Amino acid sequence: MTVRRVAVVGTGVIGASWAAHFLAHGLDVVATDPSPGAEERLRADVAAHWPTLTPVAGASPERLTFTADAAEAAARADFVQENGPEREDVKHAVYRVLDEAARPEVVLASSSSGMLPSVIARGCPRHPERVVIGHPFNPPHLIPLVEVVPGEKTAESAVEAALAFYTAVGKKPIRLRQELPGHVANRLQAALWQEAYSLVDRGVATVADIDTAIAHGPGLRWACSGRS
Amino acid sequence: MTVRRVAVVGTGVIGASWAAHFLAHGLDVVATDPSPGAEERLRADVAAHWPTLTPVAGASPERLTFTADAAEAAARADFVQENGPEREDVKHAVYRVLDEAARPEVVLASSSSGMLPSVIARGCPRHPERVVIGHPFNPPHLIPLVEVVPGEKTAESAVEAALAFYTAVGKKPIRLRQELPGHVANRLQAALWQEAYSLVDRGVATVADIDTAIAHGPGLRWACSGRS
Repeated sequence: MTVRRVAVVGTGVIGASWAAHFLAHGLDVVATDPSPGAEERLRADVAAHWPTLTPVAGASPERLTFTADAAEAAARADFVQENGPEREDVKHAVYRVLDEAARPEVVLASSSSGMLPSVIARGCPRHPERVVIGHPFNPPHLIPLVEVVPGEKTAESAVEAALAFYTAVGKKPIRLRQELPGHVANRLQAALWQEAYSLVDRGVATVADIDTAIAHGPGLRWACSGRS
Repeated sequence: MTVRRVAVVGTGVIGASWAAHFLAHGLDVVATDPSPGAEERLRADVAAHWPTLTPVAGASPERLTFTADAAEAAARADFVQENGPEREDVKHAVYRVLDEAARPEVVLASSSSGMLPSVIARGCPRHPERVVIGHPFNPPHLIPLVEVVPGEKTAESAVEAALAFYTAVGKKPIRLRQELPGHVANRLQAALWQEAYSLVDRGVATVADIDTAIAHGPGLRWACSGRS
């Protein structure tokens, strides 16, 4: 299935960045968020991001539509990218609506960094097999990495569809074989930060010196390690 | 004191890279290494590195001299960069020679990643106060970071002279307030690797996926965090 229209569910910082990215790759975006003033903020955020992007031919911020009705957004979409609050009750309420409204073959991908896909999928009584984590590294319109994480009930076809979709829109997805707190990238970052905090706490180096050490030392390697 | 001539003591991978860097910054380098064929290998290494460097006016690989006599090298130098084997007995033997031969105000900086400066300074009965770690991040002719680490007996003036020297030759030195195994950058790197190994061991992600995650995710931040 070719994705032509993406539903961006929740249009805070991450959702707005995703919307700008998808629009720049020539997709239609239907966005939804229950907050007052969400549409105006989203359009302003997309306009602010636009100069940093390299839009493909035919891409336009005018291909963004907005609805306060999450069911309508999901019903019209070929792929759903959800960026709602990181609370289990809120997630489950949102996913009940998305699961009911979206066509069964449409992947429901969550940007969640803090919740496991199996927990999120409990909000989907109909089709939990199409729920994955599609966790971007902030900001998604600039940083290529997306972590795709299946839960207990996720179908292989949903994982593959998500990997194919993210690749098609210029992202660098990786597939996790297990769900675990923090996925991969945040765990790696946390490990680094933990040692950095410890060195500062112990008075070995200042915060500025740690920054210098990373940016002018191993960070220069990390930005190209494994890049083909 | 202006540094015009640097002694590079030990001309393996790190020493040769330092020699190329110092030469490209217009310094005279007097190199020493007891290994058979060391001079030929060093000159070949410097020639190989040269096209990757941006030599200042007047810089030349011909300003490299070589002697098998470490005392002669130290006696002629305004700054000593030592890159010998990471064994305490070898280090102490080398530092006894350097300490005897170098003028008292000349800093003896060790590239050691594995030894503490207080341990190295035990090889200097005369002037332990001018011993510091000046640990580069490999390869020193390309990666700016240098970690300057004082030991118990190191004088503040030696630390400041080392920081000033490295800054003058285009490096980004940081000053550690305490000596500890791995200094700072290798500890940060080890923390990251430890989590990466654990994720691979547990089957969460492949080595290739961890590489992708770092290079296309947080590594892009780490290469510019704190850079002014």
